[in-house]
Amino acid sequence: MADDQPDIRPGETTLGFDPGAHTDATLRFIGRIHTPWQRGDCPKNVTSARERAAAEGGQFTVKLDEGFAPGLIGLEPGRGIFLIYWMHRARRDLITQAPRHAQYARGTFSLRSPNRPNPLAMSAVTITSLDPETGEIGIDAIDCFDGTPLVDIKPWTAGVDTPVPLAEG
Amino acid sequence: MADDQPDIRPGETTLGFDPGAHTDATLRFIGRIHTPWQRGDCPKNVTSARERAAAEGGQFTVKLDEGFAPGLIGLEPGRGIFLIYWMHRARRDLITQAPRHAQYARGTFSLRSPNRPNPLAMSAVTITSLDPETGEIGIDAIDCFDGTPLVDIKPWTAGVDTPVPLAEG
Repeated sequence: MADDQPDIRPGETTLGFDPGAHTDATLRFIGRIHTPWQRGDCPKNVTSARERAAAEGGQFTVKLDEGFAPGLIGLEPGRGIFLIYWMHRARRDLITQAPRHAQYARGTFSLRSPNRPNPLAMSAVTITSLDPETGEIGIDAIDCFDGTPLVDIKPWTAGVDTPVPLAEG
Repeated sequence: MADDQPDIRPGETTLGFDPGAHTDATLRFIGRIHTPWQRGDCPKNVTSARERAAAEGGQFTVKLDEGFAPGLIGLEPGRGIFLIYWMHRARRDLITQAPRHAQYARGTFSLRSPNRPNPLAMSAVTITSLDPETGEIGIDAIDCFDGTPLVDIKPWTAGVDTPVPLAEG
């Protein structure tokens, strides 16, 4: 685990092992996300990032690594996408967490905290510009540090990406 | 890459290298997804999976590995979640693809195909039952093979998980 990992707060519990020490599958980063945010000055969620971007401006871009640019063919400005990225500063062994906004500790899987067994994060963003030659994408706003490693891009689709409420019964 | 990886079709292009051969980060599987679907009889997307589940019935469950169950505290039946899982039979070097439903090859990042540099998939599902003691979750429906490895569970939130359309301008 990273040297600069967050400390444990009262009410929080750990797995007792480090999920990062066991490899079931490997990720290859495909690019980087560039934002105006640095550690200590980063919005806590994408809603807050959108508000600050609207108020303060700032550039939000994705730069794909060499070879991956043709993967953008078929996307265009205005399209909604999910960016999936890797929170490399996260702590992977926290299984319950006490976020500052919550009264009680809750399970990691009920939270969007970066601290989770596999520290993947995802944000729904909208493409503002796109160059499938250079592999550069402009996006509206996102809540991650400048330089965050990108893992995947998926097209957002309302029908697929919205849960269906349970029928009354 | 897996021995049983899909063949390349006309119009498809590869990266020329295998993203699976380079490790930037590692995943630890946290459980398995159980479905009625086997290879050759699996719906192509979650919409189709929901329709077949409504027509044919069938059990859809998640079983977490030992130690991860407390991560469910705070979730409950009726809650929408994203399951993020690993498509271990995927081909990782396809950067443009010619799906059967499309006239032209398109970039991998414009498709939800399992074949992608990091073969993560995600589906929005609704919790039907939940036991934070045993780590078992019932869900409404999902479009993956029985036994698919699970990587993460995240609570779905309309505001965060819906892209914001660009302003007219």
